[in-house]
Amino acid sequence: METRPYVPWDMMNAFMIDVFQKYGVPAGDAAICADVLLESDRRGIESHGCNRFKPIYLDRIKNGTLLPVTKLDILKETPTTLVMDANNGMGMVASYRMMEALIDKAKTFGMAGGAICNSTHFGIAGYWTTMAEKAGMIGVCGTNARPSVAPTWGVEPMMGTNPLTFTMPTDEDFPFNFDCATSIVQNGKIEFYERMGEPTPAGLVVTRDGGTMTDSGEILREMRRGNCALLSIGGPGEATGGYKGYGFTTIVEILSAALAGGPFMKELSGRNPDGSNRFYRLGHFFFVINPDFFMGLDVFQKTCGDILRGLRASEKAPGAARIYTAGEKEWEAWQERRDKGVPVGESIRKELVALRDEFDLDYRFPFEG
Amino acid sequence: METRPYVPWDMMNAFMIDVFQKYGVPAGDAAICADVLLESDRRGIESHGCNRFKPIYLDRIKNGTLLPVTKLDILKETPTTLVMDANNGMGMVASYRMMEALIDKAKTFGMAGGAICNSTHFGIAGYWTTMAEKAGMIGVCGTNARPSVAPTWGVEPMMGTNPLTFTMPTDEDFPFNFDCATSIVQNGKIEFYERMGEPTPAGLVVTRDGGTMTDSGEILREMRRGNCALLSIGGPGEATGGYKGYGFTTIVEILSAALAGGPFMKELSGRNPDGSNRFYRLGHFFFVINPDFFMGLDVFQKTCGDILRGLRASEKAPGAARIYTAGEKEWEAWQERRDKGVPVGESIRKELVALRDEFDLDYRFPFEG
Repeated sequence: METRPYVPWDMMNAFMIDVFQKYGVPAGDAAICADVLLESDRRGIESHGCNRFKPIYLDRIKNGTLLPVTKLDILKETPTTLVMDANNGMGMVASYRMMEALIDKAKTFGMAGGAICNSTHFGIAGYWTTMAEKAGMIGVCGTNARPSVAPTWGVEPMMGTNPLTFTMPTDEDFPFNFDCATSIVQNGKIEFYERMGEPTPAGLVVTRDGGTMTDSGEILREMRRGNCALLSIGGPGEATGGYKGYGFTTIVEILSAALAGGPFMKELSGRNPDGSNRFYRLGHFFFVINPDFFMGLDVFQKTCGDILRGLRASEKAPGAARIYTAGEKEWEAWQERRDKGVPVGESIRKELVALRDEFDLDYRFPFEG
Repeated sequence: METRPYVPWDMMNAFMIDVFQKYGVPAGDAAICADVLLESDRRGIESHGCNRFKPIYLDRIKNGTLLPVTKLDILKETPTTLVMDANNGMGMVASYRMMEALIDKAKTFGMAGGAICNSTHFGIAGYWTTMAEKAGMIGVCGTNARPSVAPTWGVEPMMGTNPLTFTMPTDEDFPFNFDCATSIVQNGKIEFYERMGEPTPAGLVVTRDGGTMTDSGEILREMRRGNCALLSIGGPGEATGGYKGYGFTTIVEILSAALAGGPFMKELSGRNPDGSNRFYRLGHFFFVINPDFFMGLDVFQKTCGDILRGLRASEKAPGAARIYTAGEKEWEAWQERRDKGVPVGESIRKELVALRDEFDLDYRFPFEG
């Protein structure tokens, strides 16, 4: 049962657009950014929604590591490809322009690919692949991030949590949407365990001595000191497939940097050697595949839907209520929230009120009574 | 220390080509198939090399589930895409023709994608992506397979071990080559544990009651009866990221079937309801990305190489001798074997001699003294 108060979607959207503009983001760009953040809340992915509005976007604009006006330079363009330099502007704006262009290219040529360098956090990866899916196409994308994941047999945080994301059209009410980090968990999940007073499962984190750690509070402290690292799917070593997850994380690290010739790994720390802030200089990649250039969208949708329905209907483990397919939980979160709004916890409520008061904006939130 | 005798590469290649031809495979096609199988041995991936020559190819030609003459129908072709029906011929021949065509398309258009339906086992997925890499491009491919993997919270074998394979050009002597199943292990690995008298690690297999099993012999027996299933990377449940591996396995299942409109999951069992054999009707997909349509092959190779060198040089866990990157072990296997030949165990030696005698071929293998 949700116990947090809700803010209506329209109100939250208008408010975020107004505040982004107060921070110097042009109106059209502000609308894109607000929609990306709210889409995360619509899907129930609260780690990437309005909880990040202030710390990851507004605070970074303020400290100079994120430029509110996004100047996009086209480094290379062909009928099927596009490479852009985002010049440390809004990663969400750059990604939106990229996907618009790639969808157009894939309408004409069937396939399109793009890469962005010198970017900033682009929100949920699934927003971009869903743009392709809404146009009747398959979307694939990924991004690098500041180093936090160790390679198999390593202990040093080298790569980002590097999502490798696919969204594919189905004949159902919602797409197949696979949108997650290639590490087992992200920081946010360990913060969740800590809040719940729960240990972190063994094998998610590797310490400098090659062991693991399960005390969630201790993990968070040692992560900040660089004394432990996250592991990719499959866990430590090779016996349970850790090298496979490590391979996927590496693929994303390569594609995010090498297609655009941008920086990677330790260069993405966002910190100068003296500890001061600097630009994150992230890289992203995007591919769009048009099923009409294969056997047709309808064939693709039906086959995809049949596979997903078959999986859900297969025999469950005793005690397991359901088998889910990727994107289903996000769809159900939206069904539950669409008429209510975005649930806001205490810290977000405080941020909203403070921002409203700072700029003397004409909003009164429902939770203010 | 290798204790098995070697057969020189040239001799094994000529022998396999001769035998494939005796089984009705045209000469040019036989050369392709022999090279695919031997490439697996060159890389030290012995599960997919000459050990499969007889059981997976020759025996299937004999029992009628694999047609030696590969009739390829083009179902759809555009400047960037190609869909073919392999009509239950040699999957390796169909995949070779596909990659030749896609590489040509990507030379002109920068991106290309293809799908094949009604195919058969195409050997190591990495052979096809390496064709792209040898042409200075990124190769991506995957295939479905007979159902053996259960979804998260499920216990029924529904999907194949579904590799999702990437090969990417580097400035080193060998490419980044990530070629493995999205399940934690394949059957062959459990057979290996059994031969070594070792247990299978917990969490690799799920039983019908939702538990796991570690007795390697028992797993193999129960797998044959359909009483247990493999799990995708991340293992059982959701706490260690099992749903992520399950997502990757599903992505491959979808792309392998939906782009070409072919069958999937239980339809790929190779068995009729009465237990008799039928065509496997596998599906594969392929993508080729040309870095020259982004910032150039040299930029891609250098960045990719720098990332891989950085990973290998990062801090190791105490007791860990090395950090590998994908494709490095395969390259080292080739260095060790290139002048010696392919190592052949006892069962393969028997098969080679029996095939030679059956067709009265003019070969005398070194291990015959």
